[in-house]
Amino acid sequence: MFKNETYINRRKLLKEQLKSGIALFFGHDESPINFADNCYQFRQDSSFLYFFGHNLPNLIGVIDLDEGIDYLFGNNFEIDDLIWRGYQPSIESLAQRVGVNKSANLKEFEQFLQKSLLSKRKICLLPPYRASTKLKIIHYLGLDFLKKLELSLPTESVDFIKAVVSQRQIKTDEEIAQIEEAVDITVDIHIEAIKSAKAGMTEHQVVLLAYKKMLDIEDISMSFTPIATTRGEILHNHFYGNTIKKGDLFLLDGGVENKMHYSADLSTTFPVNAKFTALQKDIYQITLDAHQAAIAMLAPDVPFKDVHIRASKTIAEGLKSIGVMKGDVDEAVELGAHALFFPCGTGHMMGLDVHDMEDLGEIYVGYDGEAKSEQFGLKSLRLAKPLKAGFVLTIEPGIYFIPALIDKWNAEKKFVDFINYNKLEPSTGEIYRTFGGIRNEENYLITQNGARALGKPKPKTIDEIESLALLNRTKCV
Amino acid sequence: MFKNETYINRRKLLKEQLKSGIALFFGHDESPINFADNCYQFRQDSSFLYFFGHNLPNLIGVIDLDEGIDYLFGNNFEIDDLIWRGYQPSIESLAQRVGVNKSANLKEFEQFLQKSLLSKRKICLLPPYRASTKLKIIHYLGLDFLKKLELSLPTESVDFIKAVVSQRQIKTDEEIAQIEEAVDITVDIHIEAIKSAKAGMTEHQVVLLAYKKMLDIEDISMSFTPIATTRGEILHNHFYGNTIKKGDLFLLDGGVENKMHYSADLSTTFPVNAKFTALQKDIYQITLDAHQAAIAMLAPDVPFKDVHIRASKTIAEGLKSIGVMKGDVDEAVELGAHALFFPCGTGHMMGLDVHDMEDLGEIYVGYDGEAKSEQFGLKSLRLAKPLKAGFVLTIEPGIYFIPALIDKWNAEKKFVDFINYNKLEPSTGEIYRTFGGIRNEENYLITQNGARALGKPKPKTIDEIESLALLNRTKCV
Repeated sequence: MFKNETYINRRKLLKEQLKSGIALFFGHDESPINFADNCYQFRQDSSFLYFFGHNLPNLIGVIDLDEGIDYLFGNNFEIDDLIWRGYQPSIESLAQRVGVNKSANLKEFEQFLQKSLLSKRKICLLPPYRASTKLKIIHYLGLDFLKKLELSLPTESVDFIKAVVSQRQIKTDEEIAQIEEAVDITVDIHIEAIKSAKAGMTEHQVVLLAYKKMLDIEDISMSFTPIATTRGEILHNHFYGNTIKKGDLFLLDGGVENKMHYSADLSTTFPVNAKFTALQKDIYQITLDAHQAAIAMLAPDVPFKDVHIRASKTIAEGLKSIGVMKGDVDEAVELGAHALFFPCGTGHMMGLDVHDMEDLGEIYVGYDGEAKSEQFGLKSLRLAKPLKAGFVLTIEPGIYFIPALIDKWNAEKKFVDFINYNKLEPSTGEIYRTFGGIRNEENYLITQNGARALGKPKPKTIDEIESLALLNRTKCV
Repeated sequence: MFKNETYINRRKLLKEQLKSGIALFFGHDESPINFADNCYQFRQDSSFLYFFGHNLPNLIGVIDLDEGIDYLFGNNFEIDDLIWRGYQPSIESLAQRVGVNKSANLKEFEQFLQKSLLSKRKICLLPPYRASTKLKIIHYLGLDFLKKLELSLPTESVDFIKAVVSQRQIKTDEEIAQIEEAVDITVDIHIEAIKSAKAGMTEHQVVLLAYKKMLDIEDISMSFTPIATTRGEILHNHFYGNTIKKGDLFLLDGGVENKMHYSADLSTTFPVNAKFTALQKDIYQITLDAHQAAIAMLAPDVPFKDVHIRASKTIAEGLKSIGVMKGDVDEAVELGAHALFFPCGTGHMMGLDVHDMEDLGEIYVGYDGEAKSEQFGLKSLRLAKPLKAGFVLTIEPGIYFIPALIDKWNAEKKFVDFINYNKLEPSTGEIYRTFGGIRNEENYLITQNGARALGKPKPKTIDEIESLALLNRTKCV
């Protein structure tokens, strides 16, 4: 945990932004796997972590904005707990640890809340995404309150969300250090994957070998379920059952969360034979050009949507150069034709969550409350608003050949002026239809006058990837 | 997955036991970590797995007992899902895979249920333990239904629970083979821990080294969060932060769940110096005697409560022989004096859950509906009823020196006729107060005329433990 001043200052800043009401932070409960007492590894809600620090279950944090008082609510352990779980700190000491002066048990929270509701105080909530938090809202505030919240957020809660986003999106130096720790560990995992993957292995074996690196460090976990596949065109593929074949590209998208719960999120695509084929080289280079074009634009005040458009155009230009696309590139990208090969976004915020603050709503986190495009491809862009110094984000343009989507668009004669479907049809386009997908992903901090990559470097150019992959093969054979 | 006949036969048997009503099996949803789309590893509800096989989210199984029809409800994937998640089987094909003829989407489930409620059909539910299942009950059946269910189970649901327990508690040969696979992997993990732990390491490092064995096998997971500690007297200790000191005992209680989701649950206690001290040897031998005494009794028709009492008496006798307890052993155990050192049970059921069917209620699973003792110690015994051939259970008597509990009982002058508190007081009893705890745990199948240990053997005697621990130390130094 950070020093108590960090949490005191974070709550102080929130109080300066939000003038009135009672801001509730429902901490997480344990999450049962197959019966109440057999639970997944506990993970606190990130906003609770940010303002109240403790990665422990059954806590509720409250900031009373009218009175300017912070509270930590939770139940103390009893003698029976002591036998089963050992010594546990009191709620009072947990509160003190994060600079909170008032602490009490959950019964008292209920009374506090009832009194507040009776006196018509404004209750501010963050959107609940765990069923257990929804049940808590039903318990403490009633089913109607939950329904209201899920249909449309009350004004006071929107203000609350915006205030939390405005704080959490600007990473401090102490947060950056945590993120870089997570990135460094993640880089090692990716290097291990490049060195490990060989034809004949299953994808799962590569995951296991790569993630063995995690076992050298205590108290870290995966920041999300990794994508580790020879079918990189399936964007959120969590299946690891394919056997790797000679000539395959392997795509790893994975990261760790460090002991302070800050995330990393990197992607690497490499040839399992250690050498790219000519086509793999061409397409890899296009994604790399898009990657570099995006990075070159990163700076305060630049709308990230423009960065995405720049990356998209680089991809469209590249695909045109190899004859897969055609026509006017600017027009193609404006209409969304390139999204056949790049149906997702160039990046997203990262911090205490791998998609930072996704629970608070993309519209606030990525769009400053402005409407999002409904165009296929662009609608999957999580971040569009102007960048600020202190933002941490991913850069991850990619190219994907998705046979089902190609066939659907072809049948619909969609964007025939921009796409050379004849190159992609089953009879002629086997090389593309079995190609898969390529994505590189790195993590960047927006600085006062540009951006810098976080953590240690990861192999990225064709030469870097091939030499690392080859090195290992020479050693092992 | 097993062949479809397995699931067909299981549902057939349930239909023979339960004559009327509609039995609902709410499959699990994904369980979010820190935002809706970032989820823990999916794990299906075990009763759903048992009767409907699929380890996939958002499914509902229904057995209409009046009509004798099985249903599988769930939504098919759409084109967008295909882009993000790749090809997914249809609900119809999932249903066929487990021998279910009727399948439909969740809207149709809602209509089916509304119709059933209107025609006053009996709805049978298993007790919900995940918040997401409770929300589903509220969604489909209303808040009142959930409240009723949580206050006291309706008769039809009690019958349903009893029928499920009566089936799941008898393990078939194909289930035994799965459990033995999980035990074998778990044995390797325990052997690795014995070989790895050394003074100067943290407990966490031992966990990481031991569980590296898991990485050699695809599609397995931990059946529960392991206990791995030098403070074995804390019964459900999930803290791994202590640094191992020379002379410590290390207690590992951990197991894996195999790809079919069958569990193992083993405990091992060993000296980190490779050699037990004289006192460690004495107490270890007492727990081992209790362990062997319990195993010797395992057979059909023997109430497991008697097994527990036998183990408890062996512990009390042993503790009397070293002067920690005194007086009449039978009387001491009847009154519960020994529970100061053995406050938990001798074992529990094991199968698709590590505490098998714990979600269905201990009273049905372990007590055949009969009342449970409220005596300290005995109240923590999860299994008391007469054994049957096909039961799989753990045997795990132990001895624990819990200073806070010793001091509490001493202050209350509790059981002064049976406990030599003078041996345990801070001034005189430091050797006991810092001793920790010892537990061995193995998994047994009740056979037609006795019992057999499941999986390959794990070092258990003092000699076996010391030689394995020593072997490694000789090699490494």
